[in-house]
Amino acid sequence: MSEPVTIAVDACGGDFAPQVVLDGVDAALSAEPALEVCLCGPEEVVAPFSEAHDRCRPVVAQQVIEMGEHPAEAVKAKRDSSIVVGCHLVRDGIAQGFFSAGSTGACLVASTLEIGRIKGVKRPALGIIIPAYKQPTLLLDVGANADCKREYILQFAQMGVAYMRSVMGVEDPRVGLLNIGEEPTKGSAFAQDCYQLLQDRLPSFAGNCEGGNLTQGDFDVVVTDGFTGNVALKTIEGTSKMLMKLLKDAFMSSVPSKMGALLAQGSLAQLKEKVSPDTYGGSPLLGVKGISIVGHGSSNANAIKNGILTGVREVRGHLDEVIAEVISQDGGASR
Amino acid sequence: MSEPVTIAVDACGGDFAPQVVLDGVDAALSAEPALEVCLCGPEEVVAPFSEAHDRCRPVVAQQVIEMGEHPAEAVKAKRDSSIVVGCHLVRDGIAQGFFSAGSTGACLVASTLEIGRIKGVKRPALGIIIPAYKQPTLLLDVGANADCKREYILQFAQMGVAYMRSVMGVEDPRVGLLNIGEEPTKGSAFAQDCYQLLQDRLPSFAGNCEGGNLTQGDFDVVVTDGFTGNVALKTIEGTSKMLMKLLKDAFMSSVPSKMGALLAQGSLAQLKEKVSPDTYGGSPLLGVKGISIVGHGSSNANAIKNGILTGVREVRGHLDEVIAEVISQDGGASR
Repeated sequence: MSEPVTIAVDACGGDFAPQVVLDGVDAALSAEPALEVCLCGPEEVVAPFSEAHDRCRPVVAQQVIEMGEHPAEAVKAKRDSSIVVGCHLVRDGIAQGFFSAGSTGACLVASTLEIGRIKGVKRPALGIIIPAYKQPTLLLDVGANADCKREYILQFAQMGVAYMRSVMGVEDPRVGLLNIGEEPTKGSAFAQDCYQLLQDRLPSFAGNCEGGNLTQGDFDVVVTDGFTGNVALKTIEGTSKMLMKLLKDAFMSSVPSKMGALLAQGSLAQLKEKVSPDTYGGSPLLGVKGISIVGHGSSNANAIKNGILTGVREVRGHLDEVIAEVISQDGGASR
Repeated sequence: MSEPVTIAVDACGGDFAPQVVLDGVDAALSAEPALEVCLCGPEEVVAPFSEAHDRCRPVVAQQVIEMGEHPAEAVKAKRDSSIVVGCHLVRDGIAQGFFSAGSTGACLVASTLEIGRIKGVKRPALGIIIPAYKQPTLLLDVGANADCKREYILQFAQMGVAYMRSVMGVEDPRVGLLNIGEEPTKGSAFAQDCYQLLQDRLPSFAGNCEGGNLTQGDFDVVVTDGFTGNVALKTIEGTSKMLMKLLKDAFMSSVPSKMGALLAQGSLAQLKEKVSPDTYGGSPLLGVKGISIVGHGSSNANAIKNGILTGVREVRGHLDEVIAEVISQDGGASR
């Protein structure tokens, strides 16, 4: 049997907490026999669930950080919140990873401040696996750092390569820079600067990736600042959502197309699963001392399960140690 | 009958020129009886076509600017190119608008330098109509200005409002700022600055628009810098393309789903048309003295037709005069 892996889970995170979180933890425990969970939240939620599940331990946290709260202030003020308490379990070595579908901002702040950054990492970055056509692509940063320096972008690329190698098993990840043209001289002054630095310093750099190629799977890792990355990610999600709605409208528009939809429903369900953000269930935060995964606020139980299992894979891939090694070897990035 | 409108058309623009351009012009002339075309290109292309079409006049241009050429250098060097010659027809009042599906960069440079900017306009911007779920949305800038100042963004918003009012018939356009959160304090330092300026100076400003809302149609106009706008536009196109491929794969994956696709084919064709970039057929360049429309390089005849007809609508809406008026009233934007 595999080594046990302990993940701290925020029972209060997400729009449908705690019920979908509990369902997700239940499914994750069934799917992964070596998983152990520290479930953080109010006693009345975590105690009965832990009672009923062998590999789940209750960790009482009396406060909840709400979605609308100012992240840094909330983390500072609510020391007994499920997010802060969960991060402390990782800091103290009781859990190896932390998962929450709660406030992304609060998770970023708490992970960075309470678990701590890996030595040499300038800015932790939030990644997301895009279900691109040919193969999954890791896009980062998708929102942790709205304003970036080019040195951050280089580190994002190094951390992204470490992720694809150690967690996704891609031997030679190809890195692209999100830009508005293929040639090195294309794009904003910042993008041109980044191109130069990546060209000089990153052996796996494979050139610019235009917005249109992001979902084709031409690259294993695509790096950009957190502003552009968040716009691109949300645009992909919004476009998929719009097309799925239009597809539904199209199927409902006539009797023959309704029958067509019935006949094709198996294949269409597979398509829906393929493009669903629930398949990976969470955004890894790269650059913290330990594993931290942030789930979508609208996560269902399946997304929660997959987010927790992604955490297990990251622990098994020793993601934080691999990143620490890559960053320490590249002292030059700190210049 | 309506007043005649003359559009100069680049016969050499696009990946499938000249044939699809000629087919597109033919279709546009049939669809719009008041349209007159000045067809710019090599004599052997433009002469026989004009011979066969009453409302088409040949304008010989011996050179072609290729897709890969450096825009500014090509425009400077190839004075007898179809793009430069077409722009001169607008400058000299022979045509009221110019359409090309050729090099976007060369069209931008030639339109800006040869036709000229409207007085007070700091930077012309490239717009695109996104076929969003509820209603079409004008996104700008989608690539003319990779680096922007916040004063440009305000002017983009003013020009966008003028476009939606005069060309699309939207009485009170709502303007959104592309950003990574809804609150005024969200986003990069630049986005926060833009928010403040739009809030202070643009009565139709309605707040931040996240990437996910871009395709929902919650706003009539969405403004951003040309880097972010181009990434967002290409991401929408790429995501649609990927989903359409996956949908095709899903339909081909089993016998029942193949039959389902056959039954639903009418509704699916309508869906495809609804999300196709060909429906509008071109990106208006806002801020030049006259009308200039840039088509997609991969335009088919239908896209060319629609691009030319969009030009006709812009001429009839007196777009350039409306923009000139808005900009001259707002002297403050030059501060």
